[in-house]
Amino acid sequence: MTSSISKTERFLRACRRQPVDRAPVWMMRQAGRYLAEYQAIRSRVSFIELCKSPDLAVEVSLQPLQLVGVEAVIMFSDILIPLEAMGAPIAFDDGGPRITEPLCSRGQVEALVVPDPEERMPFCFETIRRLRAELGGEVPLIGFAGAPYTLASYLVEGGSSKSYATIKAMLFSAPELAHALLAKLADTIAAYLQAAVAAGAQVVQLFDTWAGELAPEDYREFAFPYQQRVFAQLDQARAPAVLYVNGSCGILEMMAETGASVLSIDWRTDLAEARRRVGQRVALQGNVDPAVLLGTPEKIRAVTDETLRKGGSSGHILNLGHGILPSTPLANARLFCAAPTIFSEAQP
Amino acid sequence: MTSSISKTERFLRACRRQPVDRAPVWMMRQAGRYLAEYQAIRSRVSFIELCKSPDLAVEVSLQPLQLVGVEAVIMFSDILIPLEAMGAPIAFDDGGPRITEPLCSRGQVEALVVPDPEERMPFCFETIRRLRAELGGEVPLIGFAGAPYTLASYLVEGGSSKSYATIKAMLFSAPELAHALLAKLADTIAAYLQAAVAAGAQVVQLFDTWAGELAPEDYREFAFPYQQRVFAQLDQARAPAVLYVNGSCGILEMMAETGASVLSIDWRTDLAEARRRVGQRVALQGNVDPAVLLGTPEKIRAVTDETLRKGGSSGHILNLGHGILPSTPLANARLFCAAPTIFSEAQP
Repeated sequence: MTSSISKTERFLRACRRQPVDRAPVWMMRQAGRYLAEYQAIRSRVSFIELCKSPDLAVEVSLQPLQLVGVEAVIMFSDILIPLEAMGAPIAFDDGGPRITEPLCSRGQVEALVVPDPEERMPFCFETIRRLRAELGGEVPLIGFAGAPYTLASYLVEGGSSKSYATIKAMLFSAPELAHALLAKLADTIAAYLQAAVAAGAQVVQLFDTWAGELAPEDYREFAFPYQQRVFAQLDQARAPAVLYVNGSCGILEMMAETGASVLSIDWRTDLAEARRRVGQRVALQGNVDPAVLLGTPEKIRAVTDETLRKGGSSGHILNLGHGILPSTPLANARLFCAAPTIFSEAQP
Repeated sequence: MTSSISKTERFLRACRRQPVDRAPVWMMRQAGRYLAEYQAIRSRVSFIELCKSPDLAVEVSLQPLQLVGVEAVIMFSDILIPLEAMGAPIAFDDGGPRITEPLCSRGQVEALVVPDPEERMPFCFETIRRLRAELGGEVPLIGFAGAPYTLASYLVEGGSSKSYATIKAMLFSAPELAHALLAKLADTIAAYLQAAVAAGAQVVQLFDTWAGELAPEDYREFAFPYQQRVFAQLDQARAPAVLYVNGSCGILEMMAETGASVLSIDWRTDLAEARRRVGQRVALQGNVDPAVLLGTPEKIRAVTDETLRKGGSSGHILNLGHGILPSTPLANARLFCAAPTIFSEAQP
């Protein structure tokens, strides 16, 4: 079956749970270390230079479209960029971004500003404008940001963490300080995503990667209201919003009430079960284990086809359940992206 | 209300879902770094010496009973001890145990033996016999082991991991090799736990901590059958078996079919929801976020009381959802352990 709808139209229709000929596909962290072409650029410039140079950010954003066959382009950037614009103490070293002075006091929270996005992060919106011009509306452009809870974790832990003991100690012993921080982050991120849509992003994704580390009642208190606060400020008739949480099995029903149009879920929940639980309120994105792309072609095909079957004929965007692993062979990433086309052709 | 039943009787009745006056309580990793008395011993001997010296292992096993008020004693040991007995290349350095040569070939799997437990790990059973004599049947004694999937992950990854890419690459590209390894591990662990019960353990817990990293269908293929294979070889009329998986929300119904008497669950599933899902087939253990013990007394009390309420009047053992964090204040660990008594007195 040959389809005449554009990739953009298919993607946006899937986000809105309108019927489509087949699921669209892209991959989280799709511009990255598994691509030699990305590595070649990174060998010349630092990570932060790459984020802040629209020429280069556009180039690496487009690489997966040309090399892998994804059906949506996500702008290349980093979730910590808005934190830097807030005045948080971040250093972008060769080993990756680093909070030089983890946040622990009321004074540090009060010192953070809610920045004007275009003024403080012009390179982000320049990247979006150029990408949108390059894509010409044929392929959808995704903007993204970290969610308040995940950004707060980063600021308080000083980086990723095994047990998230430091941020949780704040939540459970100084909740009013945590709430002050989360509110400021929510307003920063809402303004940032509004500016991304104004610059040309047709979809936005909010990454609350670490919110799945919270017990359901703690998610309800510390993550959910700030996700809601971000989504309430976005015009989703213009650009649908996707919410990603890693380890979301215990909170799916709440996620469906945040105001997101699409829930992006990890591989530890069965996709058919997720659909049953959230009903018809939201579209679903996911949810193949990124490690499946380290397997045989037969394994990749079996898991992807089963995911497409469970995702159903509307309201499903094929994706990984987390970012693509750096060790993924390029051929396997290509096979994953080709699956919806192959699969739809195999259907009666 | 004063009760005349022993801690052992209460614990075993809870495991079997028989009515009890209140929930028993203990904590995973309860003998450990949050205790100054444990640190004092560790400053004199290495971790592996501690595991292999029944005198010292008995002493640290009993510390939480005396210092914290737990209502069950788990033997002090390490899940890697049976791997060493199988002939796996493990070094116990100061930084913790380490696989010196991660397993990747059929030859390495074939070289592993299924050891006679009493012959190769006599110190483990000597520790159990002495503990049982010390406790005199008044306080229940728990033996434990790592489950096949988690042990296989350790052997193949060479330690803990962020993405478990190496073990999963084996599962998804050389499944027959993985199955050969898992089968050998299952028979080793079954024999080890049988010997633990023969030596005096009244309950056994199987830790499949990392099985929650698998998609449900991969759990069904690579973890579930080997948990079943272990449980099928145990006499649970004599010693009930507990199954722990971290991040188990997506696989609870399958866990309830493994043959375990008790499911020990992490904090990311609501306990009442877990009970609804597994029905009356199994008892539940858990499921307070260990980081709650870094919070205020009010937070600890609120979460613990809610957990006891959701756990209900039979078939619940109060525990953390994962091991106690090293930074936990002793007073907070004590408060957690006192909660069932306080709570039951507050009931009408």
